[in-house]
Amino acid sequence: MSKPSLGVCYYPEHWPEDQWKDHAAQMVAAGLTWVRIGEFAWSRIEPAPDRFNWGWLDHAIDTLSHAGLKIVMSTPTATPPRWMIAKHPDMIAVDKGGQPRNFGSRRHYCFSHEGYKKESARIAKILGQRYGKNPDIQAWQIDNEYGCHDTSLSYSTNAETAFRIWLIKKYATIESLNAAWGNVFWSMEYTDFNDIALPNLTVTEPNPAHVMDFRRFSSDQIIAFNRVQCDVLRDHTQAPLIHNYMGRITEFDHFKLGADLEIASWDSYPLGFLEDRSDQDEAFKTEFARQGDPDFQAFHHDIYRAVGTKAWWIMEQQPGPVNWAPYNPAPLPGMVRLWTWEAMAHGAEVVSYFRWKQAPFAQEQMHAALKRPDGQDAAVMDEVKQVAKELDTLQGQKTQNSRVAIVFDYASAWAWETQPQSKDFDYFRLVFDFYRGLRRAGLSVDILPPSTDDFGERSLIFIPGLFSWNAKLETAISKFEGDVVIGPRSGSKTQDFQISEKLPPGLEQLNMKVVAVESLRPGNEIPLKQGGAFRIWNEFIESSETVSEQTVDGHIAITNKENIHYLAGWPDDTAMSRILKRLAVKINLETICLPRGIRCRDWGDTRLYINYNNTPAFVQGHTLPPADILLIHKDGSVIIGPKEMATQ
Amino acid sequence: MSKPSLGVCYYPEHWPEDQWKDHAAQMVAAGLTWVRIGEFAWSRIEPAPDRFNWGWLDHAIDTLSHAGLKIVMSTPTATPPRWMIAKHPDMIAVDKGGQPRNFGSRRHYCFSHEGYKKESARIAKILGQRYGKNPDIQAWQIDNEYGCHDTSLSYSTNAETAFRIWLIKKYATIESLNAAWGNVFWSMEYTDFNDIALPNLTVTEPNPAHVMDFRRFSSDQIIAFNRVQCDVLRDHTQAPLIHNYMGRITEFDHFKLGADLEIASWDSYPLGFLEDRSDQDEAFKTEFARQGDPDFQAFHHDIYRAVGTKAWWIMEQQPGPVNWAPYNPAPLPGMVRLWTWEAMAHGAEVVSYFRWKQAPFAQEQMHAALKRPDGQDAAVMDEVKQVAKELDTLQGQKTQNSRVAIVFDYASAWAWETQPQSKDFDYFRLVFDFYRGLRRAGLSVDILPPSTDDFGERSLIFIPGLFSWNAKLETAISKFEGDVVIGPRSGSKTQDFQISEKLPPGLEQLNMKVVAVESLRPGNEIPLKQGGAFRIWNEFIESSETVSEQTVDGHIAITNKENIHYLAGWPDDTAMSRILKRLAVKINLETICLPRGIRCRDWGDTRLYINYNNTPAFVQGHTLPPADILLIHKDGSVIIGPKEMATQ
Amino acid sequence: MSKPSLGVCYYPEHWPEDQWKDHAAQMVAAGLTWVRIGEFAWSRIEPAPDRFNWGWLDHAIDTLSHAGLKIVMSTPTATPPRWMIAKHPDMIAVDKGGQPRNFGSRRHYCFSHEGYKKESARIAKILGQRYGKNPDIQAWQIDNEYGCHDTSLSYSTNAETAFRIWLIKKYATIESLNAAWGNVFWSMEYTDFNDIALPNLTVTEPNPAHVMDFRRFSSDQIIAFNRVQCDVLRDHTQAPLIHNYMGRITEFDHFKLGADLEIASWDSYPLGFLEDRSDQDEAFKTEFARQGDPDFQAFHHDIYRAVGTKAWWIMEQQPGPVNWAPYNPAPLPGMVRLWTWEAMAHGAEVVSYFRWKQAPFAQEQMHAALKRPDGQDAAVMDEVKQVAKELDTLQGQKTQNSRVAIVFDYASAWAWETQPQSKDFDYFRLVFDFYRGLRRAGLSVDILPPSTDDFGERSLIFIPGLFSWNAKLETAISKFEGDVVIGPRSGSKTQDFQISEKLPPGLEQLNMKVVAVESLRPGNEIPLKQGGAFRIWNEFIESSETVSEQTVDGHIAITNKENIHYLAGWPDDTAMSRILKRLAVKINLETICLPRGIRCRDWGDTRLYINYNNTPAFVQGHTLPPADILLIHKDGSVIIGPKEMATQ
Repeated sequence: MSKPSLGVCYYPEHWPEDQWKDHAAQMVAAGLTWVRIGEFAWSRIEPAPDRFNWGWLDHAIDTLSHAGLKIVMSTPTATPPRWMIAKHPDMIAVDKGGQPRNFGSRRHYCFSHEGYKKESARIAKILGQRYGKNPDIQAWQIDNEYGCHDTSLSYSTNAETAFRIWLIKKYATIESLNAAWGNVFWSMEYTDFNDIALPNLTVTEPNPAHVMDFRRFSSDQIIAFNRVQCDVLRDHTQAPLIHNYMGRITEFDHFKLGADLEIASWDSYPLGFLEDRSDQDEAFKTEFARQGDPDFQAFHHDIYRAVGTKAWWIMEQQPGPVNWAPYNPAPLPGMVRLWTWEAMAHGAEVVSYFRWKQAPFAQEQMHAALKRPDGQDAAVMDEVKQVAKELDTLQGQKTQNSRVAIVFDYASAWAWETQPQSKDFDYFRLVFDFYRGLRRAGLSVDILPPSTDDFGERSLIFIPGLFSWNAKLETAISKFEGDVVIGPRSGSKTQDFQISEKLPPGLEQLNMKVVAVESLRPGNEIPLKQGGAFRIWNEFIESSETVSEQTVDGHIAITNKENIHYLAGWPDDTAMSRILKRLAVKINLETICLPRGIRCRDWGDTRLYINYNNTPAFVQGHTLPPADILLIHKDGSVIIGPKEMATQ
Repeated sequence: MSKPSLGVCYYPEHWPEDQWKDHAAQMVAAGLTWVRIGEFAWSRIEPAPDRFNWGWLDHAIDTLSHAGLKIVMSTPTATPPRWMIAKHPDMIAVDKGGQPRNFGSRRHYCFSHEGYKKESARIAKILGQRYGKNPDIQAWQIDNEYGCHDTSLSYSTNAETAFRIWLIKKYATIESLNAAWGNVFWSMEYTDFNDIALPNLTVTEPNPAHVMDFRRFSSDQIIAFNRVQCDVLRDHTQAPLIHNYMGRITEFDHFKLGADLEIASWDSYPLGFLEDRSDQDEAFKTEFARQGDPDFQAFHHDIYRAVGTKAWWIMEQQPGPVNWAPYNPAPLPGMVRLWTWEAMAHGAEVVSYFRWKQAPFAQEQMHAALKRPDGQDAAVMDEVKQVAKELDTLQGQKTQNSRVAIVFDYASAWAWETQPQSKDFDYFRLVFDFYRGLRRAGLSVDILPPSTDDFGERSLIFIPGLFSWNAKLETAISKFEGDVVIGPRSGSKTQDFQISEKLPPGLEQLNMKVVAVESLRPGNEIPLKQGGAFRIWNEFIESSETVSEQTVDGHIAITNKENIHYLAGWPDDTAMSRILKRLAVKINLETICLPRGIRCRDWGDTRLYINYNNTPAFVQGHTLPPADILLIHKDGSVIIGPKEMATQ
Repeated sequence: MSKPSLGVCYYPEHWPEDQWKDHAAQMVAAGLTWVRIGEFAWSRIEPAPDRFNWGWLDHAIDTLSHAGLKIVMSTPTATPPRWMIAKHPDMIAVDKGGQPRNFGSRRHYCFSHEGYKKESARIAKILGQRYGKNPDIQAWQIDNEYGCHDTSLSYSTNAETAFRIWLIKKYATIESLNAAWGNVFWSMEYTDFNDIALPNLTVTEPNPAHVMDFRRFSSDQIIAFNRVQCDVLRDHTQAPLIHNYMGRITEFDHFKLGADLEIASWDSYPLGFLEDRSDQDEAFKTEFARQGDPDFQAFHHDIYRAVGTKAWWIMEQQPGPVNWAPYNPAPLPGMVRLWTWEAMAHGAEVVSYFRWKQAPFAQEQMHAALKRPDGQDAAVMDEVKQVAKELDTLQGQKTQNSRVAIVFDYASAWAWETQPQSKDFDYFRLVFDFYRGLRRAGLSVDILPPSTDDFGERSLIFIPGLFSWNAKLETAISKFEGDVVIGPRSGSKTQDFQISEKLPPGLEQLNMKVVAVESLRPGNEIPLKQGGAFRIWNEFIESSETVSEQTVDGHIAITNKENIHYLAGWPDDTAMSRILKRLAVKINLETICLPRGIRCRDWGDTRLYINYNNTPAFVQGHTLPPADILLIHKDGSVIIGPKEMATQ
């Protein structure tokens, strides 16, 4: 992997052609090397069916490449033009309540519409034919932000038909389906696949097995939709294929979709996501309103590093206030630089800012950019330029595997959304709690897909909340010599969404059973003898193995057989830190107790410290101002540090 | 009435036939004598229209009865199979927003669909013909949990048509309807019954008289639906007929429906109901999360004792965590035994646990049972066995009428839901506040229907929030020599949902008028001179009678003419206790001030004390551990008490 | 303008004819001189299409006028009878979710239905022909409460068709529309006006320019609907035309609609509005539950004084508890008198109470009136009679222009509802915050429409949150010698809902730019150096003008060039008071610091003090009891004061 570099998202079609050359020159001057274009430009490329307008796009590509920029070209399939809806009126998705999701914004299509899938392949092919061999186009983005705006699930007639076909393929006979779903319950038995509807608009909750298959199907439909474009583009280009994922979208299996692409990228909006999709309370949101959650970005960096088969990027980096969160404050000065360095320390090959110049019109006119609507530099431009210069100080650090890893499984997110058993139980939140606990202890962490069959040289693996085992993961555990922490709720279902007759967790290595579970309201936490408590989720265990921790009332909290541990509840922050530290000591893993809001990341022979606070902190003998970074070598030498660094 | 006994709900169709015999033997060994089967088994009984499969059911009945169990057979009409919907696509109910409530869970039918009503009669008849004379089937349950999942009201075309017919029957002429509803208001006058729609999807609130008639109609439709099955079954069996009602469902008149049956039963889920349908605040819910509201169960026991014409049962008793509440904790050890004894002390003939063995599949796989999915006893089994043994200590106590009673009127619930006049006004909550106040004072209470025409030997009657008088209740009051407390809001409407020209409460005995009313936000309570306050609701009174209490600002709070009292507001806890005590003293009714969470119930010559706290309490000279009971004779001798009973 | 007078709303059709004469005599005896009738009586006037029933209405008019009352006749178009819907089934409006808004209450029509508009003209014409020359009918009300029950916007097919026509008229070519809306964004470009749908049911937010045009169109449709009736009535009567507006309804341009009428009236429900449509917190609502918000009524009085071309009235004054708010308490005794006097001091020509006698039936049966349902006086009648007598003490005070004014712009309300950029940003709330600040300082305030081209003799003008400039207002500013305070957010868009390339605020006089904006969550306020803070909204400014205030962190908070000030944020209460005081000192405007809950209003040579508290206050040397008024001459003499006035 080469030295990381910077990029920007650009919409030439939004600006007069006579500005393009200046824009390109300014991009280069700012130290940017990549520019992404084209992902919403369908109506300009093909203003009417089969009538194409290439002049402007040819010119834009020429202008940008001539300035020395590398181009990411995109397929515009997230925004089919109005004429497409006229051509395929039923391509519109349908929401859970049965209402259509009409033209007028974006992502107005159902993944199960075969006609639209063909149109997507057609436009990808035409673009590939025209630009696939262009050497300045060094990557291709397919579509934009799958799943954004709650678009993963559609309850259309097309989806229903496709779901039935998917079920026939999976089950072959209706008897198999009835048995797998347990349809004898409530007389839900079917006699024909064509009688099966989508699991919405039922009187009370539908069968979780029914929902789970619909969730799997919906994920598969997105993967299939994406694959069609991959296949077409590969016929025409050697450049790597990319999709830009989002934060905390779990409705499709990113690992499976990512397997069809070379590069995983994501759109990182730390402040928007803090307001919009965080479990933290109001006090936390107020404290970090201008900085973002100190762990949210890193967690996604580590997820997408695992999703990308060859590399991972930030495709869209928040550069200032966004327009879509409940509150849209400006980042603390320094945060855009901090976010950029943080991403690179997690292995990002490119960090690309969204967007070059603030659009004065339409939905995102209040979204900040590197350039103001009047063409002047926004305040953030100085931070971008600073990073561009600082890149020269890099010493070729490479991202290495961490000693600690967490298994993250999209299907488990679907399972526990289908059957939370508590309004507070959320799979992402559970895994993120483990991640946060490890980060607070100064550890770098890898995320692993559930299809991992070898944990490698790692020392400590966490598998919280895993819906159901698969053979590969069982293999990985059985041959692993490090420590594995399993649970709560892991292995609690068969693939058919049933409770195994042997009871969970169903792991051969551990002679134990989860005999009962319960969910806890705030205030009903279960204290542990050694400190901290279980919250949200608690399990009752019978075990023949070692009891390593107990609750205050004498139930088993953790049981283990040598290196394999089962955790019988959801630890609160105190318990999490304590348990992690105990395990770390066991395996000689060095941990540190980082000050609030301070995080670090190991990067080759260096370590990056970042200050997410709006106050200074004392780190490694240095005073680290708010929103500032410290890149320090193992030998203690500072590579990048605060301008006026005070050593205390 | 014979000695109370225990039962269980069982689904033989969920388990391999070779397990049935063991199951039956274990039921008997645990001390259970009743088993309910069949209520969701339609797709197994009739897998396709008119194609029947009796073998398994014959075998199940044989197996259970052979083990010595008495069987409750059920009609499976709460879960019509998928083929039924194909046959009658318009049998699906429609929600208030106009959306269909489709197949995929249960209760997917509209009570107004005549075709489905005929199908229900058909299956009841076929079952009655086959099993009606079977001596081991000693009771029949019709359908399951009417009204559950908000299914009492349907806004379908079938309901609209039926409603028009109902209106024609009631009003005969459209002029009568217009006059009764006051349709001159806002030009709502109709010229034809066929122009009247259901009262949903209006621009702003519909006419309350329109809504009230729709609510009466909807209740009548459920009663009619049930009656058809009663009539059919009575042709074939002598066994008593049962329905299993729910907690805090007020959408249909249980007294009227219950009049068609011998036994009223209800499904008691103390922890689920506390989370799901309680007006109490979060602190209360946290305190009682593992025990349930100390008054909720008793209140329903007393309601259903009044609903049952010959007996009342618990048909489904929560045995552990359920799957459907926002939080699903495990009961405190001892609570299942406590709930069982509490029900029996209120006169339950049978307490039947839900369910025998936890289903590993479908919607209720997270619902605990007496048996775990692996076939082992769940922890609760010991409590069940303990109760079964303790039953031998009973001395034939009989349930007697209490000296205190409250009138509970389903129509009033509809009325004040239609016209709450405050977001905090709720009829159930109002009546339950009176009930709770009486229970805190150690009193046993009877619930009376509004059709009561004789209060019997009782001493004190409460009639809070009664929508409208009827002749029977007026008769009961006029001939009663005990004290009656009426109001707030009682008698405030005519049966046509109009304010009487004479103003409320419209009771001949009392020369007084409610001249104005108001609803109060929290913080605007009206203090009473003698202590406590009115909250939520306050009335301004003109009275020629005695003023027995005043508000601090000098308005009438209570007025009475001898034994008839009118209460001009909703008392808070302090006022409620004080007022009840004052009345009790007046009539020489002994009250006690029970510790928080402790309740008692008189049962023949014995009294049952129960501890709903998670801490011990000191009761009658005994230390009562959490979740424990004390059954004590009038003479002070302990019949059942804590194992290690400490006398202080 | 003559001396103000009192009136009442009356529904003769609700009462037996033999009561009318008594009612009329009692109205006169109470001191009322106006009576409004007819606005919901369509089904009685025309019980079937083209079949009329005039007898009762002729008789009612005769009875009322014979008693000496002046009549406001109304068109009944807010309540089309059931037969009208049969005739025009598609006249029903459609809500944002796509559901019809059916018959069964009121306002069940879509403003874009041409058939219903013709019917409205027809009934107005017929009424005008019959009663237009009747000298006792001295005013005409058209329809009732436009926009009430969220009826301004309809998403019907009729609205869609009309919107397309409106767009064609505005843009002529689809290219113009695409450019104005910026439809190149997200490929939203249209090729045909007929492809444009209404902006609901989109996947994510629609284009704000699309929404803004729909909002303008929707306002225009209401104005057009109203104008048709105006035109018809003017052919038949010389009497002034009135509409009765509501509180805090901003969905249509009241200034534009009001230009077609002589009299603006509004329906003032201080307690209902406090509960139902206030931004204040629960503590404030509890404190003022029986009095209303001390500024809400005055603000609307001042708005509607500006809306009325010749006069303004209160058409419906709350007389007691209403039936439609979440809580419906009784007003503190004295408040109805206070509200009446307050309205008159703001220039109300008539204050008319709603309603004469409480209806015993239908939707508003719980709405208090001057008469109880039993025909006796409600307690409030004494207050009405007192006011009627006190009117004699008036000395012909006239309403004069205030030295301070605020520009209020309905289009800005639509704009920021379309694009709030913060869940707390609301245009009404912003303007009302300025208004409240001025009132707390003892100032009387005028409201000005955005079409003002001359600020007259005023000294201080506020223009907060103005969406976009227009030529008239720019003229008014340029020729004004007083001080103008602009911002925050003023002039931030072009009329096409785009950000100007020159950046906001786009005012030639000020050499400054808003270079960035942000919205703030509670807890992230921006403190100002001189005290107080910005909340909700903050702007980053570049200015060549004087910096008159800074934030604590050194950004520009206020910049000004002589008399023109730009305010870069939303001041909290402390900052608002301080800034207003500083400006007042600059221009020699006397301010006072009123006690909490006390307000005053200058009225000719007198000043009215009012006490909105439920406790006494010390004002101008007098103790003012709760809910009482003090009308005092400039020379210090008391015209109307508390009965037992204590001077301290």
